Amino acid sequence: MGESLKYHFSHRLTHVPPSFLGELFRVSSKPGIISFAGGLPDASLFDLEGIRKSAMEVLTEEGECALQYTSTEGYLPLREYIASRYYSRLGLCASPEDIQIVNGSQQCLDLIGKVLINPDDPVLIERPGYLGAIEAFSFYEPDILPVYPSADQWSGPDPDIFCKMVQEYSPALFYGIPNSQNPSGMSWATDLRKEIAETLDGTGTLMYEDDAFGELFFDGRPRHPVKRWISDQTIMTGSFSKTISPGLRCGWIWAPNPVIEVFNRAKQAADLHSNLLSQMVLTQYLNSSDPDVRIKANARIYGERCRIMADCIDDQFPVGTKRSNPEGGMFMMIQLPAGVLSMEVFEEGVRQGVAVMPGSPFYVDGGGTDSIRLNFSSSHEDQIVEGMSRLCHVIQTLCS
Amino acid sequence: MGESLKYHFSHRLTHVPPSFLGELFRVSSKPGIISFAGGLPDASLFDLEGIRKSAMEVLTEEGECALQYTSTEGYLPLREYIASRYYSRLGLCASPEDIQIVNGSQQCLDLIGKVLINPDDPVLIERPGYLGAIEAFSFYEPDILPVYPSADQWSGPDPDIFCKMVQEYSPALFYGIPNSQNPSGMSWATDLRKEIAETLDGTGTLMYEDDAFGELFFDGRPRHPVKRWISDQTIMTGSFSKTISPGLRCGWIWAPNPVIEVFNRAKQAADLHSNLLSQMVLTQYLNSSDPDVRIKANARIYGERCRIMADCIDDQFPVGTKRSNPEGGMFMMIQLPAGVLSMEVFEEGVRQGVAVMPGSPFYVDGGGTDSIRLNFSSSHEDQIVEGMSRLCHVIQTLCS
Repeated sequence: MGESLKYHFSHRLTHVPPSFLGELFRVSSKPGIISFAGGLPDASLFDLEGIRKSAMEVLTEEGECALQYTSTEGYLPLREYIASRYYSRLGLCASPEDIQIVNGSQQCLDLIGKVLINPDDPVLIERPGYLGAIEAFSFYEPDILPVYPSADQWSGPDPDIFCKMVQEYSPALFYGIPNSQNPSGMSWATDLRKEIAETLDGTGTLMYEDDAFGELFFDGRPRHPVKRWISDQTIMTGSFSKTISPGLRCGWIWAPNPVIEVFNRAKQAADLHSNLLSQMVLTQYLNSSDPDVRIKANARIYGERCRIMADCIDDQFPVGTKRSNPEGGMFMMIQLPAGVLSMEVFEEGVRQGVAVMPGSPFYVDGGGTDSIRLNFSSSHEDQIVEGMSRLCHVIQTLCS
Repeated sequence: MGESLKYHFSHRLTHVPPSFLGELFRVSSKPGIISFAGGLPDASLFDLEGIRKSAMEVLTEEGECALQYTSTEGYLPLREYIASRYYSRLGLCASPEDIQIVNGSQQCLDLIGKVLINPDDPVLIERPGYLGAIEAFSFYEPDILPVYPSADQWSGPDPDIFCKMVQEYSPALFYGIPNSQNPSGMSWATDLRKEIAETLDGTGTLMYEDDAFGELFFDGRPRHPVKRWISDQTIMTGSFSKTISPGLRCGWIWAPNPVIEVFNRAKQAADLHSNLLSQMVLTQYLNSSDPDVRIKANARIYGERCRIMADCIDDQFPVGTKRSNPEGGMFMMIQLPAGVLSMEVFEEGVRQGVAVMPGSPFYVDGGGTDSIRLNFSSSHEDQIVEGMSRLCHVIQTLCS
């Protein structure tokens, strides 16, 4: 035994792309590195005092309940809060029964993959598309097909191409992030949202609308989700990770009832239920404070950081550098000058003290070698200025 | 759209057994019902004050860290605590690198299924076997084969039958709960553990040793796990749900490093990481108190409740009733007198104010219709006496 023992893993692992995250994590934590590679909110903006107070109240008044097992669907008062917020923010009628709590909205990707995707099923995704979705779905062995954008490479799916692909492939699912997409940072125009909805309406294809960033528009204004037009055909997911705290691992899914019922079954088998203490603390916090004030203030701070990053690029970076123009969220994307490769930028960046996320993992068809993703939410303004100066030098080095 | 819309779910759902849990939950929460149906620890035995104090310390001293994203493998000081506890309790050398934190040990069932099970793979399980494992594995479409027990129906797998099945089927996995099994409540004899290990040693079959109840022996003495003899071939999982608090959703897996590496990949895709606040609160709690004193005291209380339940059966129940004889854990199993069906006991029980768990869901081959599972951990002594009196009457009614 021992050395000679071989482990036989399931075939589905051969469909999973290699992970770059471990390497990224290792590199980003090196001393002196300024990292734009991750996707963290700024922890110094969390309402520590408010959350601590809520935790005390829950553990003092309802401690036995908070520490016991609970139901799979999640804490009802939290689901009620989420439903009422959909109404007050977006004018959408959601029933708490059609909302379930998960361990961060990443878990929705896994469980929706589980209940909707058969091996070799076509699944549509934006190009570039969210890495975490590609990874989660890949365990269920779909044929992930990228929907190409219009002339502007970061403007979201081209509606004509999208329409043809839905007709040709009858995909189970179209996965997209209309609000401040990861990785591009861009949002779909209202007309595009309507066109996507019209194309899908009445087909067998479900819209998976990932709304992790919808509350982080710099101008504080919400945008209409696709679900507004085709509610019965849209799975929508949300998260408190970007607005309140990621460590609490509280996200949710809002989906048509038949989908929620099988989702619940998958959630039960996957981990019984989500952390109850977190759910109760969060509910107490949301109902005792006015989270909007803080969320909007934080979004404005992220907007200012985004603007500083954009100015650095526009003012200093070599000719041929292009960037996206985020209205919200935490990310910006850069297309590098001709001939400069993102993996070279990554490696040279580490040497010169700045970490970036290469674009390739966001492309399922081998693209993205000329793109990098930058996070602007987790660095303070002077770090952004210094980090972008280093990055500028890295790209100049590689251009020459 | 709307009414006419059909949802197409994945084929793997057809392999998932129907869930009885919703019905059970609904019934058990009816006013006046004494429930032996669930599987809850007694919340009044949680160390609320200690956990509240730890939560305050973490949120005061390391709040920003606790509320931020973290690494997939889990909080290192907690993994170090678990590793050192394996050494102090069981004399086993575990490296924190081979331990990962999950959302309760149920999540290990899902993720191990994901990385080890191909459709139609033979997987061995005890008979009766843990319902949660059957459910989690079934999403990966294995051929789940029950290993029959020896003469005593609750004594664990018959070693000769087991040996023949390992040779005949070369299963990917054998899943078992050697300590205070769910549902039977019984523990494997030391000789049986050794025989299982010897049979598996050097084969391609991994032992999945679920140790949710190993710290709840009424006598406070640990038992040797199978992993002691075939460490490189054993996946071991544990949980704080039964000893400290289930609401915190903190379990773990300890497995050979090649297995841990792919497990980590699956965990990352499934939900990035487990709740960090809970992990840090738990670590603070474990390192600042002496959990053993409380855990052992609670186990003795459960032992006393088990004895009372057993006495009720031995003294009052109709001739032909048989019961298991737990040395730990939270469950006891009853074989009903000839001709009495567990679903009838369930339904008549609800009418007479006592809820039980029917045996069938624990059998993958249609057995268990004459068996029920009783939980003794969550009811106080007078409730047990009253509930068992009602149950006795139910069975008498159905006998006549």
